[in-house]
Amino acid sequence: MKDKLNSINVVAVGVSGRGKGMLRRLLPMEDVNIVGISDLYEDRMEEAAALVEEARGVKPVLKRDYRELLEMDGVDAVMTAASWTAHARICLDAMNAGKYVGTEVGGATSIEECWELVRTSERTGMPCMMLENCCYGRPEMAVLNMISKGMFGELIHAEGGYRHDLRDEVCMGRENRHYRLANYLNRTGDVYPTHELGPIAKYLGINRGNRMVSLSSMASKARGAAAWVAQHKPDDEYLKGREFALGDIVVTNIKCAHGEVITLYHDTTLPRPYSRGNLLQGTKGIWMEDKQGVYFDGVSPKPHEWESIEKYYKRYDHPLWKKYIREGVKEGHGGMDHLVLRGFVNAVKKQIQTPIDVYDTASWMAITTLSEDSVNMGGLPVAIPDFTNGRWIEREPSPDTPFNLDRVCRAAYL
Amino acid sequence: MKDKLNSINVVAVGVSGRGKGMLRRLLPMEDVNIVGISDLYEDRMEEAAALVEEARGVKPVLKRDYRELLEMDGVDAVMTAASWTAHARICLDAMNAGKYVGTEVGGATSIEECWELVRTSERTGMPCMMLENCCYGRPEMAVLNMISKGMFGELIHAEGGYRHDLRDEVCMGRENRHYRLANYLNRTGDVYPTHELGPIAKYLGINRGNRMVSLSSMASKARGAAAWVAQHKPDDEYLKGREFALGDIVVTNIKCAHGEVITLYHDTTLPRPYSRGNLLQGTKGIWMEDKQGVYFDGVSPKPHEWESIEKYYKRYDHPLWKKYIREGVKEGHGGMDHLVLRGFVNAVKKQIQTPIDVYDTASWMAITTLSEDSVNMGGLPVAIPDFTNGRWIEREPSPDTPFNLDRVCRAAYL
Repeated sequence: MKDKLNSINVVAVGVSGRGKGMLRRLLPMEDVNIVGISDLYEDRMEEAAALVEEARGVKPVLKRDYRELLEMDGVDAVMTAASWTAHARICLDAMNAGKYVGTEVGGATSIEECWELVRTSERTGMPCMMLENCCYGRPEMAVLNMISKGMFGELIHAEGGYRHDLRDEVCMGRENRHYRLANYLNRTGDVYPTHELGPIAKYLGINRGNRMVSLSSMASKARGAAAWVAQHKPDDEYLKGREFALGDIVVTNIKCAHGEVITLYHDTTLPRPYSRGNLLQGTKGIWMEDKQGVYFDGVSPKPHEWESIEKYYKRYDHPLWKKYIREGVKEGHGGMDHLVLRGFVNAVKKQIQTPIDVYDTASWMAITTLSEDSVNMGGLPVAIPDFTNGRWIEREPSPDTPFNLDRVCRAAYL
Repeated sequence: MKDKLNSINVVAVGVSGRGKGMLRRLLPMEDVNIVGISDLYEDRMEEAAALVEEARGVKPVLKRDYRELLEMDGVDAVMTAASWTAHARICLDAMNAGKYVGTEVGGATSIEECWELVRTSERTGMPCMMLENCCYGRPEMAVLNMISKGMFGELIHAEGGYRHDLRDEVCMGRENRHYRLANYLNRTGDVYPTHELGPIAKYLGINRGNRMVSLSSMASKARGAAAWVAQHKPDDEYLKGREFALGDIVVTNIKCAHGEVITLYHDTTLPRPYSRGNLLQGTKGIWMEDKQGVYFDGVSPKPHEWESIEKYYKRYDHPLWKKYIREGVKEGHGGMDHLVLRGFVNAVKKQIQTPIDVYDTASWMAITTLSEDSVNMGGLPVAIPDFTNGRWIEREPSPDTPFNLDRVCRAAYL
């Protein structure tokens, strides 16, 4: 399919650390022009503009209120890496202005917000893509490929987590302006579920032949952040003696329409090495990321013994990754940051649906607010809305995405 | 303390594979006499009796109805490895006959059953010990020792599982008489939680300064066992085409009085290598069994990087294990089977409370029936009874057990 647009004009909203990283990865793309930048902080805006000017020789338009940028001529897309609680409003304004929108990850604060994203995307015809980079991770995509070859058999269970000790980022004090800090002080629940949930949702055909139906969340006490502050920032006026609302560990069990159970962990305020904690089990095999191991019934050489996943990663590299490696992997979380941005940019250029669509975006974001509800009601199971309004039953895997899992998610259920 | 009994007379009830294994480990103990054996199957009883006769030259009394053995003179203790659903009744009859009772692991089928164990033990003064071998596992006890030294800081979260592919044991057909089969066909929930929960309960000071207050369980669909039968026993008259009730993966979140969250997995009908899936997190450190790794804040050499647990196992071996290694480790799940039996036998000889008491036994067994209730109500959280009737608040760690964790579980809460 030929691109309808040779190049696209993008407005970037929110240019903190993550937003600037996004710009750095977009600027080498010759088919992407950064025409406008918005941030609530002047210094961030100027820094980001300097990056663009240095790379392209043209200074983008800067506005503290991003809505003014939406009125500019020729803007094709908005990409936002603003704070979590601002994502939905920015997405809505962008779609209402007739723009594609790509949003950095983060959960919703209400179910109504998720529905509004869906309604607005449906009404305007504008796609809304969560830029979930882990959907494009090399291990995750190789596993997706193995699933499509039937190696795991029927999928039964998946685990994953955002298990990342962020104490020395988040708890550095208010002047550090970390988007997580205010959330950690006030909310408890899985505030950041999508790095693991996005890929799992693709494995399980969520919103295309399957859906998430209910969840129960429990949160531990919150001790890690306050203990870190007491030890490392004992004189911080803002944080001294404050209680954090966010439980150190939040565990969420999600039930799917076809009987699979997904278990998610949010774990960012205790000492630990980084892990996405991926584990996948089916009737024929298992993958465990922390073990770097797999086991396949009748395939693995020794019964009941792990084998290294390395040779499988090589043999089952996803076609997208094979091509990408041939062309030379770009930086950014091992290359996946580049791929997710290209997924979005290519959809804008072709003027087609994004590979992660508004139903994905809404249903993944919803997990956060529902997890908070469940935690606050002592682990009570809560229903997960069907944002497709029944269309998930018949929705085909999109032919335009690398997540086309025809063999598994359709064959199993129809 | 001097032993009150130089040797003890034991009746063994239930001598299938596990029961015979128990006998094999008891027979070399010169201070233990096996005076009676009971089983519903004649062949099993005769096989077990032959083991005893070969080792000791005396044939024990055999009775299909174990209650007849309780009337014999001089019986000090009953040890049972009968089927799960028979454990409680055997324990009750033994205590009512004035005998110590040690029971192999397995969950309860009702909360009333658990209360009856507690009431009967309190009324008769007879201890009731779940023979949870994993409480005596070398890694588990080393970790317990590290906790007592404060290495994990305040404990926040623990995970564990019985993750053991049992398809080729359980699904071999009715004639195999596996105690799990009828349960798997009829029940869903965490039917076997204690291998991981027992040690975790000791870490967290459950029933001694802390307690489990509620749980929520979710079960996946049940596919693994039936798929195995279809492939390996397609002509089995009893199993052909049968549906199993037990979800392949059951995940249970337990909330504790002091805000810790415990996550348990039951996972026995899908292909996978064995694991107890232990993970423990505190404000200062983490242990992950599958990774064979630990990380301690300010102690581990590289920030955010696992280090091997090997040197810690050596440095922090539990005193009980140090002594045991000096004396020569006995076989049986790496030695822990011997230690748990000695824990019971020594308590009987000294005529003191068992190191795992009736409150432990009841509260651990209760998780099974409560998990079933929760699964059957869609993950609804259910309350976990306080089997100590409030005494957990003031109960001291027992000085007579290797699980004395004074520093951690008392200092944190009182």
